[in-house]
Amino acid sequence: MIVIKVGGSLGINYEAVCADFASMVKSGRKAILVHGGSAETSRISEKLDKPPRMVTSVSGFESRYTDRETLEIFEMVYCGKINKGIVEKLQRSGVHAVGLSGIDGRIWEGVRKPAITIIENGKKKVLRDDFTGKVEKVNLGLINLLLDHGFTPVLTPPAISYEGEAINVDGDRAAAILASALKVDKLIILSNIPGLLRDVNDESSLITEIHCKEIQAFMSFAQGRMKKKVLGAIEAIRDGVKEVVFADARIERPISAALEGKGTVIR
Amino acid sequence: MIVIKVGGSLGINYEAVCADFASMVKSGRKAILVHGGSAETSRISEKLDKPPRMVTSVSGFESRYTDRETLEIFEMVYCGKINKGIVEKLQRSGVHAVGLSGIDGRIWEGVRKPAITIIENGKKKVLRDDFTGKVEKVNLGLINLLLDHGFTPVLTPPAISYEGEAINVDGDRAAAILASALKVDKLIILSNIPGLLRDVNDESSLITEIHCKEIQAFMSFAQGRMKKKVLGAIEAIRDGVKEVVFADARIERPISAALEGKGTVIR
Repeated sequence: MIVIKVGGSLGINYEAVCADFASMVKSGRKAILVHGGSAETSRISEKLDKPPRMVTSVSGFESRYTDRETLEIFEMVYCGKINKGIVEKLQRSGVHAVGLSGIDGRIWEGVRKPAITIIENGKKKVLRDDFTGKVEKVNLGLINLLLDHGFTPVLTPPAISYEGEAINVDGDRAAAILASALKVDKLIILSNIPGLLRDVNDESSLITEIHCKEIQAFMSFAQGRMKKKVLGAIEAIRDGVKEVVFADARIERPISAALEGKGTVIR
Repeated sequence: MIVIKVGGSLGINYEAVCADFASMVKSGRKAILVHGGSAETSRISEKLDKPPRMVTSVSGFESRYTDRETLEIFEMVYCGKINKGIVEKLQRSGVHAVGLSGIDGRIWEGVRKPAITIIENGKKKVLRDDFTGKVEKVNLGLINLLLDHGFTPVLTPPAISYEGEAINVDGDRAAAILASALKVDKLIILSNIPGLLRDVNDESSLITEIHCKEIQAFMSFAQGRMKKKVLGAIEAIRDGVKEVVFADARIERPISAALEGKGTVIR
């Protein structure tokens, strides 16, 4: 059993990810595909006259400011366009895929942040109409039911709050908590870079291996969205996943390459 | 077991539909909710500089011209915004809802029309890049699995072609074939009118009851989108559904009202 997370940044080769994923599933390996949709959400938001607003929390993490209108655009892109596009590709390749969000069957449940404190132009500011949160609980009932009956889940944010509101959550950390809950051996996090880089502007500076004990020390290399990926990896390893791989989703056979150890392997 | 279809036209009270549906499911009745999203798809299409193009086939049925770009907008609205919005409302009301399209688990399978012949400005014209089709086969595996384990499916087009392409299909006829496949007693089709009207401009001209033998005679009263609803009803009754009700989704307790016989009842 394996969890694959594919990001939503520009340059990702979804055709290659789906083809490789389909080969793996058809060879008999149980797997779940988790995906993002960030770049396309920003593009559609712009076109709908609701330009994306990225905010940075006091602890230095970047996220999308998500009022209700943004949340619905987020759902359109993640759960509509991208999720169904992936399910269609997989079905065409003979995988019995089922696309779901974290709201469906309450797969990903957690807290909606009552307020987020951001830094804007050097000043602290509190946002209260933001629908973001954090997955704290994975309800495996639906996932296990599908896996046990030959279906392959394709899963995407949003999650659902304890009060029953859709919430924007980080996909990497959601994939990590799912991987832990399922006690999988491997979590592969694919994005548009080869893995964790010592120098964000130099793809040849790839860090190929990290032992989990030293991962905190590598946190300093993580820039922007990579921060949450590393945080997700730390959480996954802490909670029992044996191996997390950060790897490149722009290439052919991206999952096979990650399984062969290409990328940043965290053990 | 009951199938409820709620349309996607302006004026539909989704809050009331979801509240009523939740009460019914929580009282122990098994049900599936099928929904549309036509008006919102047109609105979003306009905003995305891809104005909707409605075409009329040679046999007089109106449909949305659906090239690949339109199909993806369709998926964004139907599978993203509307489907997840309904699932969120139902989850908040304590229903263990799971939102799916006809692509997921190949629930709705059928033919993609290789070409459609339309009448435009009085002339025949053939469209070949259109992703519309017709559901011919319902794969009940996933639906029954969910129902047997306490989940409530919330289902929406698109369907999937035999070749594995997402296809725009009529939601009313898709709901009708689902109702037949499940051998349900009742199919309720809710929209923004009280039922089938003798005079489309006069809501007091409601036809309250039709016997299935005489339904063809009533076809002449069906205008625009109502044509496919009547066609769906004919197909459902022919294939074993005992009763189809056309009823109003703009009112409070719309499902309860339909169950009490308000609307057009076809037996």
